[in-house]
Amino acid sequence: MIEKGIDCGSLIRSMGEAARSAGQVLAGASSARKAAALEAAAAAILGERDAILAANAEDMARASANGLSPAMLDRLRLDLARVEAMAAGVEAVAHLRDPVGRIIDETLRPNGLILQRVRVPLGVIGIIYESRPNVTADAGALCLKSGNAAILRGGSEAMASNRAIHAALVRGIVSEGLPEQSIQLVGVTDRAAVGAMLTAAGLIDIIVPRGGKSLVARVQEEARVPVLAHLDGINHVYIDAAADPAKAIDITVNAKMRRTGVCGAMETLLIDRAYPDPKALIGALIETGCVVRGDAAVQALDVRVTAASTEDWDTEYLDAIASVAIVDGIDGAMAHIARHGSHHTDAIVTEDKPTAERFLAGVDSAIVAHNASTQFADGGEFGMGAEIGISTGRLHARGPVALEGLTTYKWLVRGTGQTRP
Amino acid sequence: MIEKGIDCGSLIRSMGEAARSAGQVLAGASSARKAAALEAAAAAILGERDAILAANAEDMARASANGLSPAMLDRLRLDLARVEAMAAGVEAVAHLRDPVGRIIDETLRPNGLILQRVRVPLGVIGIIYESRPNVTADAGALCLKSGNAAILRGGSEAMASNRAIHAALVRGIVSEGLPEQSIQLVGVTDRAAVGAMLTAAGLIDIIVPRGGKSLVARVQEEARVPVLAHLDGINHVYIDAAADPAKAIDITVNAKMRRTGVCGAMETLLIDRAYPDPKALIGALIETGCVVRGDAAVQALDVRVTAASTEDWDTEYLDAIASVAIVDGIDGAMAHIARHGSHHTDAIVTEDKPTAERFLAGVDSAIVAHNASTQFADGGEFGMGAEIGISTGRLHARGPVALEGLTTYKWLVRGTGQTRP
Repeated sequence: MIEKGIDCGSLIRSMGEAARSAGQVLAGASSARKAAALEAAAAAILGERDAILAANAEDMARASANGLSPAMLDRLRLDLARVEAMAAGVEAVAHLRDPVGRIIDETLRPNGLILQRVRVPLGVIGIIYESRPNVTADAGALCLKSGNAAILRGGSEAMASNRAIHAALVRGIVSEGLPEQSIQLVGVTDRAAVGAMLTAAGLIDIIVPRGGKSLVARVQEEARVPVLAHLDGINHVYIDAAADPAKAIDITVNAKMRRTGVCGAMETLLIDRAYPDPKALIGALIETGCVVRGDAAVQALDVRVTAASTEDWDTEYLDAIASVAIVDGIDGAMAHIARHGSHHTDAIVTEDKPTAERFLAGVDSAIVAHNASTQFADGGEFGMGAEIGISTGRLHARGPVALEGLTTYKWLVRGTGQTRP
Repeated sequence: MIEKGIDCGSLIRSMGEAARSAGQVLAGASSARKAAALEAAAAAILGERDAILAANAEDMARASANGLSPAMLDRLRLDLARVEAMAAGVEAVAHLRDPVGRIIDETLRPNGLILQRVRVPLGVIGIIYESRPNVTADAGALCLKSGNAAILRGGSEAMASNRAIHAALVRGIVSEGLPEQSIQLVGVTDRAAVGAMLTAAGLIDIIVPRGGKSLVARVQEEARVPVLAHLDGINHVYIDAAADPAKAIDITVNAKMRRTGVCGAMETLLIDRAYPDPKALIGALIETGCVVRGDAAVQALDVRVTAASTEDWDTEYLDAIASVAIVDGIDGAMAHIARHGSHHTDAIVTEDKPTAERFLAGVDSAIVAHNASTQFADGGEFGMGAEIGISTGRLHARGPVALEGLTTYKWLVRGTGQTRP
């Protein structure tokens, strides 16, 4: 085990150094060249679809034999449509607006100095993910487009698929003259490689974990490199007394039931004690197939409501289950969210503007919505064209993160010989 | 020692919780109220100058008895002029533009949703500093103005001074109705308190160390909370073949000798092998009292040049010493900086625009300057009105950091009942 650790340490070190060199080239690559490289990568994925599907079949056979759950098998599985979607995703990233070189602001100082803040890549991004092989293409493309080198570490069960996708990606970018090591795949299944990435300060600038809660928790716990991640999406919808009842039902049902497994799904519904028709709202939610666990007041409204335990208010179900509480107006709602929320996405439904503004200002979450479903928490829906993840941290980037969040800035000082008095 | 650690842990925990509550109030406080509170704090510092000076005399007597160095005693010492400057500094921060509430960008989506990114405070800032008592007022004011709660931990040798300044600050802000715990001072001298702050993830959002290299190194090493800091300022000035000789001399002398102890001071001078008059440049630097350590080519230019060792290229002297190397044009200069620089501030002197642009684009430092002294690396000089520090990290904020760097943003989603298809 110690020997394995040492091997992984030196592996990640040499990958990190190669990534740093590649990153220096990528930082200076033009938008046109990066776009051409990604177009070539997308074409290579399509062109090598047979090899990718064959590799995936290998992974699937091994995973079935190892008794992976049907849900995990589905995440691992590729078919022609999924490979085509993957290539289309890379193609879409190729055409996104390049953040690198953008001038954030410019100031002329009284001494004649011109100061510009200009976006530059972060450098080297480490992506740690689980069984979905499409992340290889998706994350690799986002890193490259933003001028960053990527070190990808996918799940061991998807190793053959990831290798095939990675080979296609690299073939594409090399054909346009960008470095082979712009996107590297950690080729060992040893879990010590993850530990080595998490402690590779100075070699990897930021780690993005993409996967379930246990992966993200481990990453956040062990990392000595900054992490861009969210752990929980315990999202609330608050139905105010002044809510439009039709919007209340539409938004609640959509926020909970459109897709229950996404991080933007509502987990807790808070209803103002003064809301006129809570019974219809809860009934509508139950009729979509949602299990409702409520406090005493909610249980009194509908016999199908079961009792919520104290843990329910802190639970991210990611399932067709909702906890529902009656609260005393917006103050009760905000106090509940401050205590139980996870700073991801929370929404208010109300026709009362000042109440909406109080909620938008007072709720400390990455995304706060008024009269809109929490399921809009997504980079695509935010017009970013893609998403590397959603951050519930407060530093650097918050909420959906795409290309801009993978950059930093530097200050350019343009003078004519100025010295400081 | 274990008992002390436990005490400090629970002390910092309770201070962190109090700070979180105060921060929630501060996040919602209007710019006018924060400004009024800081004006009152500035007035209180002036009004309580006798108590502050008496407390400082106590610290000075103890420090002298303990044999502190003259440099440290000078940093610790307050007099009427320094107290007045401290009050003026708080007053100046009161009138800075408030970043909180500023809309970074706004997007109208095809579905009618309006997305706004709005600046909000980071939350709770921990400041760890050494003997200068003015940091108590300065850092406390910047945190409050940006809507953050502050936990200040100054040097034990300045404890009486810090207590007196802190008491005045708090008196001012409380008089304007803001929470007493907006700015807290860690009142124990036990070094374990620093350790407790560094590991207070979830209670403290960011740590800003202000002090010498050993403090910053310890903070970066031990912290589990994000840190905003720079460790070294190994800054370079590169004199290109096409440099104007008068600018070359002016900028080099200013960058090195204006103040040798600041982090923006030049430490290494790189001269293009094709630069016409290196002898005059080195002579001018030596004549200002600078010790020059050079490579063989530089030694050959002037008998007063001593030999640079390999460590010199990686040394931040913070003194009237410079290392000087002859390099092969801009590529040699950029390679030297990439290898030995600390990503702080580097400058080029040249009249050739394309060369300047290559340097500005290619040098990976927080600040890259053309025909300007490296000593402009300062929040005040950048028009920020103040500075909490200079960051050489890549995440969140880079270069001089003032109010904006103490904020994050949240996304506001304004809808009219939208649900996600």
